This record gives sequence, C-alpha cells and structure tokens, in this order.
Amino acid sequence: MSDRLNRQILLAARPHGDPKPSDFDIVDGSVPTPGEREVLIRNLLVSMDPYNRIIMGNANSDQPPIDVGDPMFGFTIAVVEQSNNPAFSVGDYVGSMSGWQEYALSDGSDLRPIDPEAAPLSANLGVLGMTGLTAWVGLTKIIDPKPGGTLVVTAAAGAVGSAASQIGKLRGHRVVGVAGGPEKSRHLLEDLGLDAAVDYKAPDFADQLARAVPEGIDTVYENVGASMVAALLPHLNMKAQIVVGGVMSAITATEAFEGADRLPDLMRAVLYKDLTIRGFSVPDYFDSYADLLAELAPAVAGGKVRYAEHFIEGLEAIPTAFPDMFHGRVTGKMIAKIG
Amino acid sequence: MSDRLNRQILLAARPHGDPKPSDFDIVDGSVPTPGEREVLIRNLLVSMDPYNRIIMGNANSDQPPIDVGDPMFGFTIAVVEQSNNPAFSVGDYVGSMSGWQEYALSDGSDLRPIDPEAAPLSANLGVLGMTGLTAWVGLTKIIDPKPGGTLVVTAAAGAVGSAASQIGKLRGHRVVGVAGGPEKSRHLLEDLGLDAAVDYKAPDFADQLARAVPEGIDTVYENVGASMVAALLPHLNMKAQIVVGGVMSAITATEAFEGADRLPDLMRAVLYKDLTIRGFSVPDYFDSYADLLAELAPAVAGGKVRYAEHFIEGLEAIPTAFPDMFHGRVTGKMIAKIG
Repeated sequence: MSDRLNRQILLAARPHGDPKPSDFDIVDGSVPTPGEREVLIRNLLVSMDPYNRIIMGNANSDQPPIDVGDPMFGFTIAVVEQSNNPAFSVGDYVGSMSGWQEYALSDGSDLRPIDPEAAPLSANLGVLGMTGLTAWVGLTKIIDPKPGGTLVVTAAAGAVGSAASQIGKLRGHRVVGVAGGPEKSRHLLEDLGLDAAVDYKAPDFADQLARAVPEGIDTVYENVGASMVAALLPHLNMKAQIVVGGVMSAITATEAFEGADRLPDLMRAVLYKDLTIRGFSVPDYFDSYADLLAELAPAVAGGKVRYAEHFIEGLEAIPTAFPDMFHGRVTGKMIAKIG
Repeated sequence: MSDRLNRQILLAARPHGDPKPSDFDIVDGSVPTPGEREVLIRNLLVSMDPYNRIIMGNANSDQPPIDVGDPMFGFTIAVVEQSNNPAFSVGDYVGSMSGWQEYALSDGSDLRPIDPEAAPLSANLGVLGMTGLTAWVGLTKIIDPKPGGTLVVTAAAGAVGSAASQIGKLRGHRVVGVAGGPEKSRHLLEDLGLDAAVDYKAPDFADQLARAVPEGIDTVYENVGASMVAALLPHLNMKAQIVVGGVMSAITATEAFEGADRLPDLMRAVLYKDLTIRGFSVPDYFDSYADLLAELAPAVAGGKVRYAEHFIEGLEAIPTAFPDMFHGRVTGKMIAKIG
C-alpha cells in the first residue's frame, strides 16, 4: 500500500458566514494499514451537507466544531479494500462516516452494508441515507400529518426538502414546495411531481403562497429558519404542526434581521392556533433506518419516489463547490464522486 | 320574581391595550323566568380571567370578540333558584359559563354539579375549575415533565401559574416560579412552597434566573409571552418542552418590541436543542375534568395543594378591579363575590 496516497480535506480556517475555498486544505497522507478486526475502506461517493458547515464552527450551533487542521468528517459510500473483520469482505459496499478523504480505517461499528443492486449507490447518501432518514423521521416520528392535508416543505429543492416532499407524496399528502427561483419551481412541479410550488425569491411570493394553500397549512417540514416560519404563520390552520429539520438560513447568518421582533407573533400563534413545533436529533432514530428502507427502497426502485442529485467530480472539487449549497445554487443531494 | 332585578355587566367599548372601567356598562334588567326544562341560577362567585379581556376584542387573538352591548360571559359558581329540569334541584350548587351577571337561565347542558363539602366553593373556579384544568392539561396531556426535573412556571403567582406550580410540586418536579416583585417571590416560596422564585422585575433578574436553574430547565409552563421565552431560552436543556398556557403580555400589547428579532434564536434552539413547543385548547380536554378532580380534590382538601385567591366584593367592583390583572397587581385567582 505504500505507493498509494490518501488525499484528505482538512479544515484550514473557521468561516465567517458562508464557507469559502480557502477554509480548506487538501493534503496527501499515507494510506493506513488495518489492524486487528479493522477494515480499510476506499470512499467512492462523498456527501456534502449543511452539517459539514456546522462542524467548521461559527455556525450559530451548540454542536462543538472540529479543530482547525482536523479532517472534515461526514457521510460517504465506500468499498471495502482490506478486511481483518469477519463481518466485512473485500468488495463489500458500505455507508460510512469517514468524511472528505479517499481512505479510512474502521472497526466496523460505524459501517452499514449497502446493497448495490437495490438502488443506485448514490441514493444511499440521499433519500435512502441520512438525508432520507432526516426527512422520514420528521414526518413519521415527530409530527403526524394527515393524508390529504396540506404539507408545506421549505427548501423543497434541497436534499432533505426533496426527500420530505417525496415522502409526503408517497403518504398521500398534498405537498407544496417552497424554493428560490423559477427553475426550482419548475423542478418541484415537473421533476418531483409536487402539487404546487412557491418561489420565495419572486416579488409576488406572498400571493404565490396564498394561492398555493387555499385551505391553509396543516403541517410544515421546515428547513430554512425564521423568515420562512414568519411567512407561513398567517396560513397555518388550527392544530398545525411544524417539524424543524434544519435552519439553513441561520447556519451562515452573520447579521441580525432588520425588521421588528417576530417572536411575539409566533408565541400568540402557538397558543391561539394550538400549534406544535418540534425539533429532533436524527441519531436518536438510527434504529428506524430499517423501517425507512422497507418503505422507501421499493418506492425508489419503482420510480414512485423521485430525487435530484447534484454531482461534482473529484475530492479536489469540494472546497470550491461546497459553498454553492449556501447560495441556493444546488438542487437535490450534493455528492462528490471521488473513486 | 318581578320585583327583583338582574344586574349585568355589558361590553361598552373595545379596549385599546389594557381594559379600563369605561369599557363596561352596568345595567339592571329583569330576572328571566325559566321555560320548560330550564333552570334559573343565581351567581355567587364570578371568575375574572385573561380570557375575559380576549372576548372584548383588540386582543391579538383569533378568537372572535363579543359584540359591543353584549353581556360579558365567563365562568361562575351559582346556586339553583328555580328548576324545571329534573337533573337540578333548588339549592344545588353548579359551575356555569353565565358570566358577569346576577341571574341566568340554562337548559342544564353548560352546568356542572359542585360539591360544596369537598372544597371551598371558590376553589371550583380556581385550582379545581377551568383554571386548574388549564394547568393540569398542559402538564399532563401536552407535555410530559419528568419527576425531579426542573419545571419553570412563568406568571407563577397568577391563577393558572400557581395551579401549574402546585401540580408540578404534587407530581414531584423541582418547581421554579417567575413573577414580578419581591412580595410575589415571597408568596411563591413561603405560601406556595416552590423550590425557587425569580423576580423578573428585579435588576438582577438574569442572575436570579441562572442561580435558580443550576441544572438547566427541563420543562416550562409559559403564561407570559415572547420576552419570557427569550429569557429562558439559554437555560433550556436538550429536549426541553414548553407548553404555552397563555400569553398575558401579548393580549394587551399595543407596541412592538424595540429590540432585535428573537425568532431566529428560537428556531435555532428548536433544532439544536430538540425543543418541543405546544399550545392547546382547554375545551378539547373537558372530558379530562373528572381525572383532574380525582387527583386534585383530595390534595386540596388535605392541604397538599395550596392556592391564593384575590377576592373583590360585588359585581359593581368588577369594571374597576379587572384591569388590575394586566398590571401585575393580582396574586392568585381573581374572583368577585356577588351573592
């Protein structure tokens, strides 16, 4: 193995607001050798997620950041190259948390087997992976949408949002997606088959929203933050439920909102409309992953659940491409093909 | 009956902000005569609640107000004076929604029997009445506090707040009450037996709060509104639950908060701390009233649940006294003795 190198992306600096290419270093280390019961994996596909920005620090999050100089961690799809662990054979496909690097060691505890026949490998990072679990848990364990009711998904063209939208459709909800720009609205309607799409960047956003929810909003899968919640609030029906799967706008926010305080409006609505607002931690629901697969894998295979992917080529492309996620330039799940 | 008059309080004008005496008219009508299956009741005790302000209008609420000129409705304890309904006998004590007047007719459907031996009559408006149900439902049906955890109750010296505090103590929570002024802090500690009291009007409010919740906050029974939620937010533990039983500060609010928008902080906390925030409608839980009585009536009779009452004398005193509720001048349940 000594002639091979392990290319890695390290955190070079903590971003202020949006991440930028100079916040990362690319280094070539040596490929590690597996010890007793260890597995050497080679990453094929690397997931890029808002979570990766959070671990860089300065992200308005309670989650502790990684240290400057540490490798960026995150989800990947990998193939087993060497194995001293009887549970894994060379050539097995696995999901891992080994992050933005070409090779990694594992004792197997963080690996999950992937069936390459059941669905495209990349789907195991998206709708059949942690992205899908984030969406699925929110709509099945945290809130309880009623089939036929109106479900609004914000950042609906994003990875979690499009998964939540598709799970909503699969379960018989009327799904309204909110995203930025006419091309994303087209994508939500034509590619994902949602019932209505609303462009939050359009000058007539408020009118579009009102037209899209003529019977009000019963449930919300929220990925954006305060501004979106404030916009939806007047349309919420009695006993509406909001699950908060992300706060994209907050992660990189560096300036305060200029307008009036919107918290009193929310608290009044919670009381007078009987609202439920809930967050959740995906790791609490890792045990539900088999249930997600049982429901979604056949639907993905049968084409009933659709999803978009935004591929970039090569580990080296990540530092330049990753910031696009925070500028609304990515539709669907963002993945680097590295092997 | 023709020589008796029925004194009533009518809504004379919609308040702007706090109610004032001139928003009410006092009129003397005739005492009505019960028809077939009807009951004539005479009110003894009249409840004053934030709800009464809401039905006056201009209260930042979705609840439709009553018309100007209509009698003020609300909860009372009454005695049956005449009965054409076999379910009620002359002399029976009943709870009613007949409002701020001396006499009223009922077909019996809105009356609930009161046992005058089980507890003082007035307790049936407070901790054993709708006030208690509002507190009890919030802490037993909406959120699920863990015994031994820290429960913070805001407006803890108010009617709902003191009931929630006592239910919290009864169920083994560590209860911290927030109220305004040193006398209310004394009341919370000495009269109600809470574990800690915090004076939100004190210059060192933030320090008092931090000292009162050294292990953070697990659950909140919230009665005030945005400012209190914002103050508690930094102390909330992971998976903290907030039940919103009232928004006292919002009901009469006429001016916007001057500071920065606090909604982004809340949305971030919902996600990163796994918060649950819920409102509820008490009428959805009227069926639970028997369960409340089963738990609380013996505790009230045995002195394990304590409560304060703020009595005023005579129906005529209500228009002048009721506004005190919105100036923090009332401790405990506010009741007019009128018969």
